Amino acid sequence: MRRGEVPHAGASVTARALRVLEAFTPERPVLRLAEISRHSGLPLTTTHRLVGELAAWGALEREPGGDYRIGLRLWEIASLAPRGLGLREAALPYLSDLGRITRENVQLAVREDLSVVYVERLAGRGAVPVLTRVGGRFALTPTGVGLVLLACAPADVQERALAQPLVRHTEKTLCSPEEVRRVLAEVRRTGVAVSDRQVTMDAVSIAAPIHGPEGTVVAAVSVVAHAATADPRALAPLVQVAARGISRSLGAPGLPSSVA
Amino acid sequence: MRRGEVPHAGASVTARALRVLEAFTPERPVLRLAEISRHSGLPLTTTHRLVGELAAWGALEREPGGDYRIGLRLWEIASLAPRGLGLREAALPYLSDLGRITRENVQLAVREDLSVVYVERLAGRGAVPVLTRVGGRFALTPTGVGLVLLACAPADVQERALAQPLVRHTEKTLCSPEEVRRVLAEVRRTGVAVSDRQVTMDAVSIAAPIHGPEGTVVAAVSVVAHAATADPRALAPLVQVAARGISRSLGAPGLPSSVA
Repeated sequence: MRRGEVPHAGASVTARALRVLEAFTPERPVLRLAEISRHSGLPLTTTHRLVGELAAWGALEREPGGDYRIGLRLWEIASLAPRGLGLREAALPYLSDLGRITRENVQLAVREDLSVVYVERLAGRGAVPVLTRVGGRFALTPTGVGLVLLACAPADVQERALAQPLVRHTEKTLCSPEEVRRVLAEVRRTGVAVSDRQVTMDAVSIAAPIHGPEGTVVAAVSVVAHAATADPRALAPLVQVAARGISRSLGAPGLPSSVA
Repeated sequence: MRRGEVPHAGASVTARALRVLEAFTPERPVLRLAEISRHSGLPLTTTHRLVGELAAWGALEREPGGDYRIGLRLWEIASLAPRGLGLREAALPYLSDLGRITRENVQLAVREDLSVVYVERLAGRGAVPVLTRVGGRFALTPTGVGLVLLACAPADVQERALAQPLVRHTEKTLCSPEEVRRVLAEVRRTGVAVSDRQVTMDAVSIAAPIHGPEGTVVAAVSVVAHAATADPRALAPLVQVAARGISRSLGAPGLPSSVA
């Protein structure tokens, strides 16, 4: 499909190698050579060469049967992403405490352009089923973490997010830009976002912002609970306390520090 | 330094893009353009172009001051590595239980050629300090997880591991191939590895193998405890139970399953 591209110079080759990696998704984490070729839109011979190079380095791993998967070597280097494992390591003790006290699902997420990316997720025992996975993406406006991240995003990001069609998941999903704008203003005022049955009719999420060393919002933490039984007003302060703990461990300014 | 290379064809370009990523290490997770050029051994102009392409895709992120870091987009794709986050997600509840019961450090690791790579690490409160980090590497023979992984590795891997010089960290480090061979045989016999003060004189690690769906050993789990107070014989069955729980959740054959 993209065979019409001019196959020259480094730009093209690097972009093609990255396109090979992009063929792998949560829905198809294991691919054969022909599938990589099809999903990346690259000719089979090009795919064969690039896959060979990526596998030699360890970005891909070849299984005995000929299937390919993303390799551990790529994961090792990717673990240096400060918004991935670095953030997650700082946050884990607080997320764990929040999970133990509430017994609900706990999520840690960052914004990547107009999506939420989940950096950590701890499943509560007996908690409501949630659809997210670590490394997975979701839209901003239907989730608690997304509302927090969007409320604190630059104005141009907010405008682009609201200019998109907003997908309806349930009868409670916020689908008009005016509604979302009103909710974002409320999030900024209160410092907490409540996303009520926007994704599924059995779940509510309560989220709060995490600040980085420059004082800006770098991530959000949420609890996702059964809509029928959860009390968002009771959960909100717990989520806020966890968010402040994580912010403090990241070196956010303006938080009271402990006296040793 | 590598400017003499012939700068042509795809192989070279992909390899160079990967060399740019390899310039980032746990010791230097943030780099300026000139530093990337120096550490990757690529000319500044080539580095500039490759960094631009990698940043456009999201494999690198540029900070306002001009520093570069590994990007979240790479982490997203790398999270598909089955031996990275996939393994870790299956293991986390068992690691968490093991950490809560023992109050010690808990580690999950896989073998990558002749190294251990740590996939997860939970720090116990008040536990002995450990040097490892998630995504980090260490030698096989001085660690409990490494002894387990080496004991279960193909014979040629064992021979290569023992043909290397074994680095001494403490007076207790196993440095002769004969000693290591004897210990590996013991690990295979008992199903548990104890690494006693091999890395630091205050820590002992107790490790057990994790089996995958094909029945082969795919990972190892360990507890790292204070050498002065820990009782390896008491900790071993706890580590083994956690390893079997993780193996079962990965679909390992031959383990008794629960009756629903």
